[in-house]
Amino acid sequence: MNSNRIKKGLLIAVPVVVVILAVCILFFNRHNEVTVEGPIGQIADNETDSSVWAQFYPAHWDSYQANYDNTENPSHFEAKPYLQVMYAGFGFAKEYNEPRGHVYSLEDVIAVDPARKKAGASCITCKSTQVPGLIEKYGEQYYLMSFDDIIDEVNQPIGCLDCHDPKTMNLRLTRPALIQALERQGKDIDKLTHQELRSLVCAQCHVTYYFAPDTKEIVFPWDKGLKADQILAYYDEKEFSEWVHPDAGTGLVKPRHAEYETFMDSTHQSAGLACADCHMPYVKVGNKKISSHTWQSPLNNIEESCTTCHRNGTDWLINRVKTIQNQVKQVQDLAGNAVVAAINELKISREAPGADQAKLEEAMYQHRKAQWYLDYVAVTNGYGFHNPTETLNNLGIAIDSAHKSVQLAREARGAQ
Amino acid sequence: MNSNRIKKGLLIAVPVVVVILAVCILFFNRHNEVTVEGPIGQIADNETDSSVWAQFYPAHWDSYQANYDNTENPSHFEAKPYLQVMYAGFGFAKEYNEPRGHVYSLEDVIAVDPARKKAGASCITCKSTQVPGLIEKYGEQYYLMSFDDIIDEVNQPIGCLDCHDPKTMNLRLTRPALIQALERQGKDIDKLTHQELRSLVCAQCHVTYYFAPDTKEIVFPWDKGLKADQILAYYDEKEFSEWVHPDAGTGLVKPRHAEYETFMDSTHQSAGLACADCHMPYVKVGNKKISSHTWQSPLNNIEESCTTCHRNGTDWLINRVKTIQNQVKQVQDLAGNAVVAAINELKISREAPGADQAKLEEAMYQHRKAQWYLDYVAVTNGYGFHNPTETLNNLGIAIDSAHKSVQLAREARGAQ
Repeated sequence: MNSNRIKKGLLIAVPVVVVILAVCILFFNRHNEVTVEGPIGQIADNETDSSVWAQFYPAHWDSYQANYDNTENPSHFEAKPYLQVMYAGFGFAKEYNEPRGHVYSLEDVIAVDPARKKAGASCITCKSTQVPGLIEKYGEQYYLMSFDDIIDEVNQPIGCLDCHDPKTMNLRLTRPALIQALERQGKDIDKLTHQELRSLVCAQCHVTYYFAPDTKEIVFPWDKGLKADQILAYYDEKEFSEWVHPDAGTGLVKPRHAEYETFMDSTHQSAGLACADCHMPYVKVGNKKISSHTWQSPLNNIEESCTTCHRNGTDWLINRVKTIQNQVKQVQDLAGNAVVAAINELKISREAPGADQAKLEEAMYQHRKAQWYLDYVAVTNGYGFHNPTETLNNLGIAIDSAHKSVQLAREARGAQ
Repeated sequence: MNSNRIKKGLLIAVPVVVVILAVCILFFNRHNEVTVEGPIGQIADNETDSSVWAQFYPAHWDSYQANYDNTENPSHFEAKPYLQVMYAGFGFAKEYNEPRGHVYSLEDVIAVDPARKKAGASCITCKSTQVPGLIEKYGEQYYLMSFDDIIDEVNQPIGCLDCHDPKTMNLRLTRPALIQALERQGKDIDKLTHQELRSLVCAQCHVTYYFAPDTKEIVFPWDKGLKADQILAYYDEKEFSEWVHPDAGTGLVKPRHAEYETFMDSTHQSAGLACADCHMPYVKVGNKKISSHTWQSPLNNIEESCTTCHRNGTDWLINRVKTIQNQVKQVQDLAGNAVVAAINELKISREAPGADQAKLEEAMYQHRKAQWYLDYVAVTNGYGFHNPTETLNNLGIAIDSAHKSVQLAREARGAQ
């Protein structure tokens, strides 16, 4: 009788414990990637051809190949026509398309209008696995070569070698500009954590940068900090402009897709997330779990990206993202119209006889500032979602500065 | 031997199951308030004196009494001096303090400068548990009575009867303006969920409203929706203004602490939270768990409010809130300066001989719009935290409209 009770007890207790243990194991294992099983050591140190790596990492390769499905690269000017007015006198005004999948990187940079390739070889720095080898080969001369001089030496797009050590598969940095920027911040790049690297390998390219005037080297303008105001202060201190707007007369600087800078200090980043957590979520392939190498909007695979943490359902999540992005779009368009107005007013005032030059200078600085803040937001992927409040803060400053430019420009020509 | 094994198995399995069950019970019980244990039925239907309720709910009473500790009510004008310029010609310009604890509601409304009490009896509608009884007693005449006529009939501040049915302790609505607004939206107020009521009892007062011109009744301007643009559209359609700015000449409307409207469709609200989840978190009192009746910033008891859901640590949480509030403050100040500039320009242009009246009208409308959007944000508690992206979106619109007003006002007097 007693033994029967015990047996009955066990019949209930043991399955309960087993189920609970299974749930715990599943739960705690959720974030651990499987150990890479490839035959480490068989890929050459400088293997730039990702299809060679593919033999050992077929699941990763398949997810990388899926980047070919991302074929759309509409012009930025379709949704943001004011950008073309802002870029007058600069290569970007000729053509400025949103990027397709990373596998098209080389093909697409070759197709870009030559007017935009004045930076020469630097234009391919983020477009091919072969670039670190070329920088090693040519040294500082690399940055001074023309686009046509270098283009015959590359045939591989962005790939495995850009972020991975072929011997250990560890993440590593391969682009000098990021390494130098971190070193100037006093960071020891040999002591970066895995989680830091899961953002920093992206930050090799998904950042804003400029070309040093003499050497043409790529430089990250981060010495005063990574935020829009700090980067503008850096440029202002150097009195640095990339071009002068032909109508407004303003010396301008051009932000480039500042995804990393924007993401830093966001709610998601400060909570411990890296780029890869949302853009390279863990996916199941057969009995393996891999970090997806299909780089895309997390909305395309929301159940693998967002819902790992947010259990509110995909409809709710999509609605949140769209709500925030629409708020950003609305204010961004206000900023765009205001900057165009500033450019128009500056043009009129510059042509007006006897215009007050000091006022004009002030108006131009407000234009420089407004255009910087707006452009910083407008060309960063995600319509502000990498850091919604900071983005909207930047746009508020852009609107304010643009209108101040309008008012100062009018004052300069004698209008009140 | 076999029986020994079974015993050993049980020695492990039973405690494991017990611990797991205990954890599950604790976890799933976390959000369930304890059943109210008071002797239901012993509090009179119209018991306006909260100290009578206190005998049956001593723990709730203690937390309510703690509202006496919230003694600070600095002037809004200290941090936001532009508000005083914006309110010229209206009672709020005389004095506009941030509120102290709810227990001071009656004392503080009595102390308010008489210049602000032109709405008469309506001014106490949210200040005393006795108001629903007075509305029943006087009917529509209540709203037409003067402040001095009514004030001798009240001696109780905000308290239990404002939100609770004394027989069942259920939440219920007692203020006509909210009930009527919901009815106009086609909502059946008898079918509101408990979770909806945990916000709506607050929305009886923490909303924007106006006094109907003839009847002086309090009306919520929600018929086109709850958002800043929709409420302004409602007022515009009615061509309704509360006062005319003496310098700018603009007909203006005054938003009042729109916490509820701002919170709606925020990330927190759309995720299912109510006001009470953050502002009245569950706290342990002895062996009981009660919903705190100390109404305050969730930052004051962050471990009971935020960390119930957010496990990132209090330092992280405080840093997130401060980061967002600072972003809002910065842009809010830009908007404040721009609205003051608009008022100044309008004043000059209205005094200029031969000013273009059509342009002046346009400039005044932009001022009305800018001031509405800014004021909507500036007087809503929390520096935007109830809905950060919507708040920053509103401020972007405010900055844009204020500068447009400046430009139009200048154009009106012949300046370009």
